[in-house]
Amino acid sequence: MQFPQPVTISEIALLINATVVGNENALATGINEIHKVTPGDLVFVDHPKYYDTCLQSAATHIIINTEVSCPPGKTLLITDNPFEAYQTIVRKYRPFFITEAIKNTTTGIAPNAIIMPQVYIGKEVVIGENTVIHNNVTIGDYTVIGDNVIIQSGTVIGSDAFYYNKKTDRAVHYNKMLSCGRVVIENDVEIGANCTIDRGVTSDTLIGAGTKIDNLVHIGHDTIIGKNCLIAAQVGIAGATTIEDNVILWGQVGVSKTLTIGANAIVLAQSGVPSSLPGNTTYFGTPAIDAREKRKELVWVKRIPELWNFMKKQKQTD
Amino acid sequence: MQFPQPVTISEIALLINATVVGNENALATGINEIHKVTPGDLVFVDHPKYYDTCLQSAATHIIINTEVSCPPGKTLLITDNPFEAYQTIVRKYRPFFITEAIKNTTTGIAPNAIIMPQVYIGKEVVIGENTVIHNNVTIGDYTVIGDNVIIQSGTVIGSDAFYYNKKTDRAVHYNKMLSCGRVVIENDVEIGANCTIDRGVTSDTLIGAGTKIDNLVHIGHDTIIGKNCLIAAQVGIAGATTIEDNVILWGQVGVSKTLTIGANAIVLAQSGVPSSLPGNTTYFGTPAIDAREKRKELVWVKRIPELWNFMKKQKQTD
Amino acid sequence: MQFPQPVTISEIALLINATVVGNENALATGINEIHKVTPGDLVFVDHPKYYDTCLQSAATHIIINTEVSCPPGKTLLITDNPFEAYQTIVRKYRPFFITEAIKNTTTGIAPNAIIMPQVYIGKEVVIGENTVIHNNVTIGDYTVIGDNVIIQSGTVIGSDAFYYNKKTDRAVHYNKMLSCGRVVIENDVEIGANCTIDRGVTSDTLIGAGTKIDNLVHIGHDTIIGKNCLIAAQVGIAGATTIEDNVILWGQVGVSKTLTIGANAIVLAQSGVPSSLPGNTTYFGTPAIDAREKRKELVWVKRIPELWNFMKKQKQTD
Repeated sequence: MQFPQPVTISEIALLINATVVGNENALATGINEIHKVTPGDLVFVDHPKYYDTCLQSAATHIIINTEVSCPPGKTLLITDNPFEAYQTIVRKYRPFFITEAIKNTTTGIAPNAIIMPQVYIGKEVVIGENTVIHNNVTIGDYTVIGDNVIIQSGTVIGSDAFYYNKKTDRAVHYNKMLSCGRVVIENDVEIGANCTIDRGVTSDTLIGAGTKIDNLVHIGHDTIIGKNCLIAAQVGIAGATTIEDNVILWGQVGVSKTLTIGANAIVLAQSGVPSSLPGNTTYFGTPAIDAREKRKELVWVKRIPELWNFMKKQKQTD
Repeated sequence: MQFPQPVTISEIALLINATVVGNENALATGINEIHKVTPGDLVFVDHPKYYDTCLQSAATHIIINTEVSCPPGKTLLITDNPFEAYQTIVRKYRPFFITEAIKNTTTGIAPNAIIMPQVYIGKEVVIGENTVIHNNVTIGDYTVIGDNVIIQSGTVIGSDAFYYNKKTDRAVHYNKMLSCGRVVIENDVEIGANCTIDRGVTSDTLIGAGTKIDNLVHIGHDTIIGKNCLIAAQVGIAGATTIEDNVILWGQVGVSKTLTIGANAIVLAQSGVPSSLPGNTTYFGTPAIDAREKRKELVWVKRIPELWNFMKKQKQTD
Repeated sequence: MQFPQPVTISEIALLINATVVGNENALATGINEIHKVTPGDLVFVDHPKYYDTCLQSAATHIIINTEVSCPPGKTLLITDNPFEAYQTIVRKYRPFFITEAIKNTTTGIAPNAIIMPQVYIGKEVVIGENTVIHNNVTIGDYTVIGDNVIIQSGTVIGSDAFYYNKKTDRAVHYNKMLSCGRVVIENDVEIGANCTIDRGVTSDTLIGAGTKIDNLVHIGHDTIIGKNCLIAAQVGIAGATTIEDNVILWGQVGVSKTLTIGANAIVLAQSGVPSSLPGNTTYFGTPAIDAREKRKELVWVKRIPELWNFMKKQKQTD
């Protein structure tokens, strides 16, 4: 997430009760997770295992729970609980907006966009030209929707990420990491009924131009879908995954998190994708493999009885 | 789709800017896809591969992009882009109805039907006696619902088909084919929560009398479900498929498009059905096969290690 | 279900037109299915196969279609159609509440709970402190929701069970058994968007404290989810199943009815669980087995061609 305008480190430090090492007057432009940070960003880290990665990342300002040596040109914000510091910053700069209004915004909506009855539109939403939002759709805060987009009834855009911090200090429990990212939907995208597209945790979930999505599809936080993809009904794609251009996922396919499916790949119905797949190939099965290999496997399995009979006969002969 | 009343060919020709071969005063009663056409219908064709099928189909009037020899008693409407001509006809005779109203119609709703709060009802909808529509349900334009039907919360009836015309003239992209068909739900059907049932592209999606559908089920365009079927949660059925009477599909089953599952078949949970299945049998697996065969296969696979050990031992002996 | 206050057997007998054997002044405290009954309850039975189980169950009052010997301290209510008697009792004591109101109740809702726009809240609902209900959520009658709960947009809590009495007196058909149970959601539960959680048929569907549920998840009637479970997107759990504490079900897992998954079990994505699984183990596959075994199987299958070649060679040699 980017702040509406840059914030001084001293203001952040006051908010999260941190001690500053470095320039208090430096400006933070936003806050992001480690794999999404850009220069000017804040990042947080609370486990020594990840200290170095964070200190050497593109982030300029590091919220950390121990005093360490500060890299030149960077700032440390030392505080006991960096995770809570992150939550506090999100609550302040991208607050959950409690409302009784169905539509919190109209300024970002193109005059010729069609918004059907009972559509919930959050705060700071942008909706482009000729876009049609059918009844009972939810458009969460900060969502950006392009031109000529169609979203069918009951779909939820911008639900929170399924993203928790596991704690074992007492019995196992989970702390929700607040989502402050967005959903960005490019031009000519069409989305079916009763789908769910989660917002990014700190970055954007992106649906590329021309992509068509059928009903009851789930797309996780920070996932990037390329251009002109086809995603059939009941497909589920976990978080922070990349689907490149012109990929086709047939019905009920499941795709795991933080992987990449290459351009022009086709994944046949009900397949499960646990790890990255190169493009320009058709896949099938759980785990998904080259569909030609999978089809051969199905035939091989049917030959086991013949092998068995051969073995039995040989054993009798021996 | 049938037109509200027959339309002259000259009127259609004017609308889509076509040259007529045949009787300009002939009447068109509707427009349909090739596999759904009946006499009196318009049909469109833009690829020479399908010219003959269309010319010899039941359709009386053919929208086509080349002048060909016209079969006796038929009419040709020659125009550069038959696909766009189809879209134009649908836009005129079954327009998308922009509205701020939650309920566009009450005339077709039986007085003793129960419509709970926040139900969206489109144009020209029929709802029968004793039917209960729970809150936040969407009933799309032209839907017909019988008596004693129950539809639970959040379900969307009559969403558009996931049906595109793939174009490769520039980068691959997809043109939405406008849906003008309906959903027809017969008596005593019950549908769970957050389901999606797409309308037909040009014909009807049909749910037969007495069929019971659980939650989060997807049913594609033009699909025909028979009478007294049971369809468990999260089942997905693609477009233009036929499920005959008394079929049971257990949870998360996936069924591909344009196939038939015979009467009294049972498909066990999570199975995938890629092609037609005869009735009166229980199926399991992806691809679904006779469940007894599938169970045997699962046992055979567990015997491979024994075969392997046998081979190893033989090789040592040889 | 428990009655708001105990009801005399004579009053029940009058309602369902039954003959009483035993004490007409005895009190019935509620009505339940056979596997959920507690002392004071009514139960119904209409098949001789189940007479003994019902007569010897914890239920105090038995609605039955034949006169049998009455166990001491119990009551029989003899009537031709015990199933219809059950339906009649539910209609009277837990009626379906027809309304035009979005919110039927406010008395049970904590003042600091946040209810976003277009939330439907049924009758006799309890919502705890700091709980957030996002827009377009449905909360069915009698639902109990604890503190610090989050329910995201479009989710349906308290839909009716998918539970039918199969009849073959004429063509096969199904009679809906009315649901009179509740959904109970404990503290710190979070539920994603467009989920469906069915109410119990006569008892409660329970989501244990601290459990987190992703989008498009289905949970069946009378199912008990333990504490601090993680349930990923598009998981489906059928009715009357028990998921113990700290279980993790990854995306698109399917779980069958009336089984138990032991504490700390992990079920990998797309697996299907047809029968009970012990805890503290990771499972994979359909049917789900120990994930290490499943992974070995996947390797064994790839060795079949080598076995085949060996056999072919041996046959040539012989």
